[in-house]
Amino acid sequence: MSLFSRNAALAEMFSRHGAALCQAEELSRDTVTDALNDGHMVFLGNPRHAGVAPRLVGQPARVKVNANIGTSPMDNSPAAEMRKLLVAVDAGADTVMDLSIAGDLRAIRVEILAGCSLPLGTVPLYSVARRYAEAGKDPALFSPEELFEEIERQAEEGVDFMTVHCGLTKRGAEWASEAGGRIMGVVSRGGTILARWMRKHGAENPLLLGYDRILDIAGKYNVTLSLGDGLRPGAGADAGDAAQWEEVVMLGRLAREGLRNGVQCMVEGPGHVPMHMVEAQIRGIKAACNNAPLYVLGPLVIDSSPGYDHIAGAIGGALAVRAGADFLCYLTPAEHVALPDAADVRLGVIASRIAAQAGETALGRPQALRREATMSTARKRLDWKAMQATALDAKAVCSKRGEHADEEVCAMCGDFCAVKMSREE
Amino acid sequence: MSLFSRNAALAEMFSRHGAALCQAEELSRDTVTDALNDGHMVFLGNPRHAGVAPRLVGQPARVKVNANIGTSPMDNSPAAEMRKLLVAVDAGADTVMDLSIAGDLRAIRVEILAGCSLPLGTVPLYSVARRYAEAGKDPALFSPEELFEEIERQAEEGVDFMTVHCGLTKRGAEWASEAGGRIMGVVSRGGTILARWMRKHGAENPLLLGYDRILDIAGKYNVTLSLGDGLRPGAGADAGDAAQWEEVVMLGRLAREGLRNGVQCMVEGPGHVPMHMVEAQIRGIKAACNNAPLYVLGPLVIDSSPGYDHIAGAIGGALAVRAGADFLCYLTPAEHVALPDAADVRLGVIASRIAAQAGETALGRPQALRREATMSTARKRLDWKAMQATALDAKAVCSKRGEHADEEVCAMCGDFCAVKMSREE
Repeated sequence: MSLFSRNAALAEMFSRHGAALCQAEELSRDTVTDALNDGHMVFLGNPRHAGVAPRLVGQPARVKVNANIGTSPMDNSPAAEMRKLLVAVDAGADTVMDLSIAGDLRAIRVEILAGCSLPLGTVPLYSVARRYAEAGKDPALFSPEELFEEIERQAEEGVDFMTVHCGLTKRGAEWASEAGGRIMGVVSRGGTILARWMRKHGAENPLLLGYDRILDIAGKYNVTLSLGDGLRPGAGADAGDAAQWEEVVMLGRLAREGLRNGVQCMVEGPGHVPMHMVEAQIRGIKAACNNAPLYVLGPLVIDSSPGYDHIAGAIGGALAVRAGADFLCYLTPAEHVALPDAADVRLGVIASRIAAQAGETALGRPQALRREATMSTARKRLDWKAMQATALDAKAVCSKRGEHADEEVCAMCGDFCAVKMSREE
Repeated sequence: MSLFSRNAALAEMFSRHGAALCQAEELSRDTVTDALNDGHMVFLGNPRHAGVAPRLVGQPARVKVNANIGTSPMDNSPAAEMRKLLVAVDAGADTVMDLSIAGDLRAIRVEILAGCSLPLGTVPLYSVARRYAEAGKDPALFSPEELFEEIERQAEEGVDFMTVHCGLTKRGAEWASEAGGRIMGVVSRGGTILARWMRKHGAENPLLLGYDRILDIAGKYNVTLSLGDGLRPGAGADAGDAAQWEEVVMLGRLAREGLRNGVQCMVEGPGHVPMHMVEAQIRGIKAACNNAPLYVLGPLVIDSSPGYDHIAGAIGGALAVRAGADFLCYLTPAEHVALPDAADVRLGVIASRIAAQAGETALGRPQALRREATMSTARKRLDWKAMQATALDAKAVCSKRGEHADEEVCAMCGDFCAVKMSREE
């Protein structure tokens, strides 16, 4: 029985958007439906999200890029977040996540949903924990019931994908503690809250025990589950330890269970991973998760570049894409240091698109190779209009050229331009 | 017979600076002198460069980063170049190259030499070609004699290393033409001028025919020759072609000949190389060149990121370092588009240092691992002073934190900080 027959919301959305998506991806309908049925690809698009332009995530679709926005307690301006949303869209993000943790979270989310045709993701646990924190209570005191209600509310509102840390087990959380040998312990916000909840209640993760309930909600609204990696390494030295793999294998089992129940699942991945381990991590996670679409955060290949984590993340992202990652969550220059501003958002999206283009070029993906060939040819012709049109960020080319934008050569070499000199004989 | 006995200038400089360099590199004197004798490492430092702080380049010394500065016909301000020099030093560059091609080149170079304790590199051909261009003549009309005189003059002035495109042959230049099948042809400025000279004069490369003469000069002043890759690929699709390898094998032969004559040589490398070919290129070039220190420009893993080539270059640079490259020439956001300004210079140096740190971390180099461990530990302790001190760019951390610089957590998560939440139980 196909996924479509078990997920009416997906079937409806695919009948409306499938043809255009297949065309944009340059993939046949059979290729796409087979990949969706096998759980190797997901279709992001909740029918309740009015005006959503769905996206396909997973091979062999083009690698996608997500931009995180959202308020924080120390930097809480919903209007600024709406501006960041526009910047993310303009810079070429494929999806957006609202990670707000301050202010009226529901109002912010609803405004973003209304203003954003890109698929929107959230972490429902934040909203629940936020209520407790706001009331001066421990966020880990929430009841599982509240969390399921929040998930259903956000699904009704139209959220297209949600991070749920269902694979985080009690023993995984113990192994990930400092006592368990980690340098950084747990660095995921959601993972930290859940680990604390489990310790306080002496019980197993409510998102794991209540997975059936989550599947019911997700199936009804075609919410794609993004199975969160609460135990991802937060330092290069923690990458690939027992705690991480404990969670990965659970995520793989949960992704298969989701698919059997007509629910689309992605798997979230690291995190902080030194270069020599990126390929092993990506291939290992994909294998353990039946090739479910892999959504990575970075990975950051070094810890020592705060202020420039978009660059360290682009190195890891490019390696990850080449090794099979499907979806890059951006990192901005503000990561580990501050809430990103609009300029950071732009840089983060572009850096991730560079990583995707680098990885896909290495993989020989036709769209990536075409862009490369078009750029090189335009460069050889000194055709600046074509270079600008082909560049991953046309605006940057334009602004960098500045006062020299109308000249044949660029200001680096002037008449010493090698291309021009080669031509003039 | 050791290199030192054939190169009195090197012997003198090493006796003065060797102990401090060995200490800084955490390498024994024997390790360093063996590597220098084998030609696997070079000591950059011309005794005529007053106040120079020499650098070791080549494994197992730490990977070094070079910043290019210099005037261009469309952006000619020697004062601006002096400011860029200070920025490059402040950002952590190990060496600087003066690639000026406009204005009074000698005056600029002498000013940079006097103001720069880092080893300085140049491309003497630019000065010669510039004289012709300035007089409205074809730069390819220069006489070989003028070029040798320029090399000697710059050596006397104290230039520490010079790019000389001695490995560029007539047949290599033909193979690298568009007629030979390349998309971009020759993209090196020096390579273009030499290829044109060879066609005009129907003769072989004067830098190749006159290599003995260059060795005499270089040996006298301990100028390290940076054997230039005039035929490096200028598009990903051109990487690894016959023209490139024709030059690489010549560079390897010339490096060995240099060493036999007591002259230190590095080999310059690409350029534009897609990710999947970087390792093969680096290992191939090192093997063909007897492991002479490899000085790479990038490499750029995609062509389609003008405005952000420091990021595409950091991806390639990290892969190159991991595969064995010794020396990274920076790329700035201005590459292919404009002459870099001071902000571009800073970003270029930092991006290259990130690439070096990523590659060296993957290689398990002790200094790189120590920096990573120090950062992770500081992060776990929320010790912002230590994070700033350990960051590749302390200033960026400080300015990003802004008004929140005195708080325990950062503005991204505020009290939702995973590290803080994990701690408070």
